[in-house]
Amino acid sequence: MAEQNIPYKIYLTEEEMPKAWYNLRSDMKNKPAPLLNPGTGKPLTAEELSPIFCDELVAQELDETTPFIEIPEEIRNFYKMYRPSPLVRAYCLEQKLDTPAKIYYKFEGNNTSGSHKLNSAIAQAYYAKKQGLKGVTTETGAGQWGTALSMACSYFGLDCKVYMVKVSYEQKPFRREVMRTYGASVVPSPSETTEVGKKILAEHPGTTGSLGCAISEAVEVATKNPGYRYVLGSVLNQVLLHQSVIGLETKAALDKYGIKPDIIIGCAGGGSNLGGLIAPFMGEKLRGEADYRIIAVEPASCPSFTRGTFAYDFCDTGMICPLAKMYTLGSSFIPSANHAGGLRFHGMSSTLSQLYHDGYMEAISVEQTSVFEAAEMFARVEGILPAPESSHAIRAAVNEALKCKETGEEKTIVFGLTGTGYFDLVAYQKFNDGEMTDTIPTDEEIAASIAKLPKVPEA
Amino acid sequence: MAEQNIPYKIYLTEEEMPKAWYNLRSDMKNKPAPLLNPGTGKPLTAEELSPIFCDELVAQELDETTPFIEIPEEIRNFYKMYRPSPLVRAYCLEQKLDTPAKIYYKFEGNNTSGSHKLNSAIAQAYYAKKQGLKGVTTETGAGQWGTALSMACSYFGLDCKVYMVKVSYEQKPFRREVMRTYGASVVPSPSETTEVGKKILAEHPGTTGSLGCAISEAVEVATKNPGYRYVLGSVLNQVLLHQSVIGLETKAALDKYGIKPDIIIGCAGGGSNLGGLIAPFMGEKLRGEADYRIIAVEPASCPSFTRGTFAYDFCDTGMICPLAKMYTLGSSFIPSANHAGGLRFHGMSSTLSQLYHDGYMEAISVEQTSVFEAAEMFARVEGILPAPESSHAIRAAVNEALKCKETGEEKTIVFGLTGTGYFDLVAYQKFNDGEMTDTIPTDEEIAASIAKLPKVPEA
Repeated sequence: MAEQNIPYKIYLTEEEMPKAWYNLRSDMKNKPAPLLNPGTGKPLTAEELSPIFCDELVAQELDETTPFIEIPEEIRNFYKMYRPSPLVRAYCLEQKLDTPAKIYYKFEGNNTSGSHKLNSAIAQAYYAKKQGLKGVTTETGAGQWGTALSMACSYFGLDCKVYMVKVSYEQKPFRREVMRTYGASVVPSPSETTEVGKKILAEHPGTTGSLGCAISEAVEVATKNPGYRYVLGSVLNQVLLHQSVIGLETKAALDKYGIKPDIIIGCAGGGSNLGGLIAPFMGEKLRGEADYRIIAVEPASCPSFTRGTFAYDFCDTGMICPLAKMYTLGSSFIPSANHAGGLRFHGMSSTLSQLYHDGYMEAISVEQTSVFEAAEMFARVEGILPAPESSHAIRAAVNEALKCKETGEEKTIVFGLTGTGYFDLVAYQKFNDGEMTDTIPTDEEIAASIAKLPKVPEA
Repeated sequence: MAEQNIPYKIYLTEEEMPKAWYNLRSDMKNKPAPLLNPGTGKPLTAEELSPIFCDELVAQELDETTPFIEIPEEIRNFYKMYRPSPLVRAYCLEQKLDTPAKIYYKFEGNNTSGSHKLNSAIAQAYYAKKQGLKGVTTETGAGQWGTALSMACSYFGLDCKVYMVKVSYEQKPFRREVMRTYGASVVPSPSETTEVGKKILAEHPGTTGSLGCAISEAVEVATKNPGYRYVLGSVLNQVLLHQSVIGLETKAALDKYGIKPDIIIGCAGGGSNLGGLIAPFMGEKLRGEADYRIIAVEPASCPSFTRGTFAYDFCDTGMICPLAKMYTLGSSFIPSANHAGGLRFHGMSSTLSQLYHDGYMEAISVEQTSVFEAAEMFARVEGILPAPESSHAIRAAVNEALKCKETGEEKTIVFGLTGTGYFDLVAYQKFNDGEMTDTIPTDEEIAASIAKLPKVPEA
């Protein structure tokens, strides 16, 4: 059987690494709805976006037609420090589950940021540097994006200001030190350092924060300080573009061994990993060249795909960002602090939202105790302590593999293992001590925040 | 220039991975002195060692002549989950230092234990399982060995009891949770759970512990509980044997590109990484086939090579272990709690001690503030947050590269990057806050503990 010749880890050579990112939007018949100016209701222009984002990133954000965008050599060289990432055949997990399914995972955790976030961070820092900026601001939830951006800024000599969701700042004190080691400054959000932070604190005293709050603060600081721009680690089209490197490498590695996956699974917060992982596969599906089951996995505590609504909403809690059309729980939705991982964003990438709306992918939500059960099992048999975010995908992959066990089907399952859990030990401790519980928002809670969705002005 | 074709990361294929460990002692004319029974002064026999160690590991410990020992297939399969590890060309570090030197590092940190320790842990767990044991006991300092052993035991379904040096237990709370996630039990050492622990606590109330203390406790528990054996992550010949996989892979990767190193650098605590990294190179040197500068780097706070004496000593503080001839500061030496990393063992592998004594290698000691300076620089340019232990080797490699800058020599430097610093953020925080100081033992302190060296009975 050729099957047996598949190594535990498939590595591409440096020459085989992608030289261009793939722009999934170019193959979509129904393009994602444009970002709107909340004041006028009109699509945002490059001019309007340029005070917030670097010019080249604005161009990438708005480009719906170019299929491939070259990866600058400086970025490709940085990628070579930690990429290509391995596509791992989960032989031990298959054996443990006693499943006929063949399970692969693309492991993005072998870099100090601990996740795939570095793929876009280095790109965004590069364009900021190229534009001659002094620095960038951002938000971070679990801390992976902030760490990635700190690393990227340190590499290019840019100043880096990170607003970190307060609950994560407290649960993950060492994340802050990694960012500081890379020279970044880190502020727990909401904070008193911004107008929007003060307002949120006044309205929700004692709030543990959310990505939406932190985004508002970071955007405010970027737009008020000359020489600064805001960068974002998820949701945006540009981020999905950069993250396509994950999917392109995955597909190249599978193609090398003639493997065609049946199911592709990714965890979904704002969509950066999922959008990157599925990009070339979804492209084939959109072009009618192949079919795949594509599954987004989100936490039951923040279920934007599965319980949200498809509508224009603010990307941030402070309502200072553009309006994006997406599956959303409402920008005023703040997920329970009890939830241990990231994936705490109220909305979802417009691109992925459109694809989900058009029936090109499925979505499920999973509860965190079952996620950590899968994480622990995975750690023990595959030797990698996974991030809670990534473990949502593990849970779904294990469920699909167990279905194969029942039916006897030899399906090929590919999932994204976005990162490691070395900074999530407070959550693991809770789980180890049997103190982890599930918190699922009520229908009333979701309805209440959805009721506050903004009215889009007539354009 | 062929030079330019060398990738950032050289990976072997799974087929190119070593199928046998290399036993460095087989090429030594002056064999390391045997372990002695402290009661009789006679070399320990396999029978005497078997209550402490698994039978196959005893055989490996005593085998001075077999050059290659086959790696069992089960272990090779486990290795494939995280090996081959990359040999990285440090292009960015070279550029930062503006040196003509060519710098390579063998990176052993891409596994959840965060270090090379897993290479021997899985071997020792395998032989324990094969012997039908219930479980194993061990000590851990910085926590890397304990984590590695927890992972290995979890894989083979063995019980795992870890005595963790108290200062590390307190500085690295999350290490404990990783070990628990892998099902191990972890006790801060010295503890009240053993006779020897009680004795040490009575004599040194408030002690922050040492590897020597923790070894005593773990050995006591192993020998008092049927179905248990003790395992050790460094110092022993068997450990150096298993760790030879590092050096064998390094040499195979260099050979693939026709690279011949001038200088090979490893950090040295008990010698597990250094002994493994240098093994095949030292073998060539011993056989007169090649010459290399080989440099051991130890902390100035625990300088066994550079300020210790070459004599028989106990491996543990409680003086219940066999006597080993080695460079030692005396088994009663307890390094300052101020020292941030591992490498806190009072002695050194007998094999490496003999080689150092015979002039086959050099040793230097470095102070921790300069180690963290090198660590921070390395993290920023190479994108990997290094463990404090590994950073001792970085410091020395940087120093050698800077010498090349002065002389213009294009030397090729290879060093071992044993692990990552994700669980060392308390130390990084101290460094980031400018609160790190150096603590170097006085001559009197060292003389006092050396004066307590045991008298070896006439055999």
